[in-house]
Amino acid sequence: VDRDHNFPDLKYEHFIASAVSSFPVFRMAAKKELSCGELILRAVEDSSKWHKAKNVHFGAFLLLIPLLANWDAENSAKAGELSLQYLKNTTYKDSLHVLNAFRISSARVMGSKKLDLRDDDTERFITEERVNLYKWMSMAPKDNIIAKEIINSYTISVKQSRKLIEWYKELDDLNHAIVLCYHDMLSRLIDPLIISKFGRDAALEVSKKAGEIMNLPEKQRLDKIKEFDEELIEKGINPGSVADLTISTIYLAMLDGLRF
Amino acid sequence: VDRDHNFPDLKYEHFIASAVSSFPVFRMAAKKELSCGELILRAVEDSSKWHKAKNVHFGAFLLLIPLLANWDAENSAKAGELSLQYLKNTTYKDSLHVLNAFRISSARVMGSKKLDLRDDDTERFITEERVNLYKWMSMAPKDNIIAKEIINSYTISVKQSRKLIEWYKELDDLNHAIVLCYHDMLSRLIDPLIISKFGRDAALEVSKKAGEIMNLPEKQRLDKIKEFDEELIEKGINPGSVADLTISTIYLAMLDGLRF
Repeated sequence: VDRDHNFPDLKYEHFIASAVSSFPVFRMAAKKELSCGELILRAVEDSSKWHKAKNVHFGAFLLLIPLLANWDAENSAKAGELSLQYLKNTTYKDSLHVLNAFRISSARVMGSKKLDLRDDDTERFITEERVNLYKWMSMAPKDNIIAKEIINSYTISVKQSRKLIEWYKELDDLNHAIVLCYHDMLSRLIDPLIISKFGRDAALEVSKKAGEIMNLPEKQRLDKIKEFDEELIEKGINPGSVADLTISTIYLAMLDGLRF
Repeated sequence: VDRDHNFPDLKYEHFIASAVSSFPVFRMAAKKELSCGELILRAVEDSSKWHKAKNVHFGAFLLLIPLLANWDAENSAKAGELSLQYLKNTTYKDSLHVLNAFRISSARVMGSKKLDLRDDDTERFITEERVNLYKWMSMAPKDNIIAKEIINSYTISVKQSRKLIEWYKELDDLNHAIVLCYHDMLSRLIDPLIISKFGRDAALEVSKKAGEIMNLPEKQRLDKIKEFDEELIEKGINPGSVADLTISTIYLAMLDGLRF
């Protein structure tokens, strides 16, 4: 989904409505008025009130809530470190809240041996083993790039946010800079949502193609990106986790002073 | 400006940033925590913090603040009536706040004999004659369709909001429905921002052309609208006041239950 492309059941206006409805819970996160898990659950609940799509921002909320709880970090790298610490201080109750948030949002996620989010045994395991959010994310499948990003102090988003700022200075076009940032990440990461729907080979192929495009001269690059986007859309391939990481990247760029 | 077209100094992301930054003052409006004029000024000030454009939503804020102060009206027509009453209860101090908001936003407005917003005598006149917002808007030039809309209880937006809901049901495409709504209004109204920059004949021609397009069979209409948009953009013609009325229309449609 982007400004010019909708899916039948997931549309651009759903993202707008979800983003707007997030304001109150984001403010609560900044004030730490609720625990991490409660905030994520509240974000999903509030989002669901204002649009008819199922999952719009589940992955984005997982990424953003810890960062917002540390909004006053002096820079993006520090925000990433503090967010990791914040995750380590959660409890198993936070994990249960996130499990509920997942069930409401019907997010597509990869299975894992112990903590398949679709499995009712997960709730029992979290409770009995008192698995907090940090531990739970540490147990996520290695392909879950969102969980990995969080437990690695958001290193990808921090690095990409610096590129985003540079690209914006160079191009003086925010949308173009964001698109480049997204495609750059797509060229370096294997999106788990492609793996889960089309298999690993397809996901690798997408990253390879994105990498070839990123290596083109600047004048050709944006046109090729548009062609590639159309191709992915026709095939129903939606790199949604890389899109989520683009969101945390934009947030961190703004924390570091991006204004437009 | 729309999803696919920017001006050099006014871009899509400015509208997004302005809309997002409006949340706190819109909540204050709903709770009537400040007076009407203070709210409008605050909205402009908050908007200005988060983007580098000058005027993004001045006209929209004039339209939305009274409606939001009456968010709990039972329907859109009632909201329009209550908003008019709300305007009648303002004081000259509210007019001074709006004058300040205008100066901050550098909005382009039409001159009038007595209350040209660009004229320092205006402040003196408002103070000496104790001109409240309702009276001030009543004195606006007849071509000022925003002031007229407000003192006429938002009758245009109420009517268009019903069309918007119907078009959305028919088309199942929110963006398409909004575009039709905008063009329908463009076919019926003469945009003062076109008059002020290109003259009345040009503004009449734009409305006439929009009317011809709205009369086309549905299958042809959207393509012709896109062509017409490109033509206007190439000529630097920006029907900004009709765009503002589209905003109040969308708000009222949501008040009447539009969900997507």
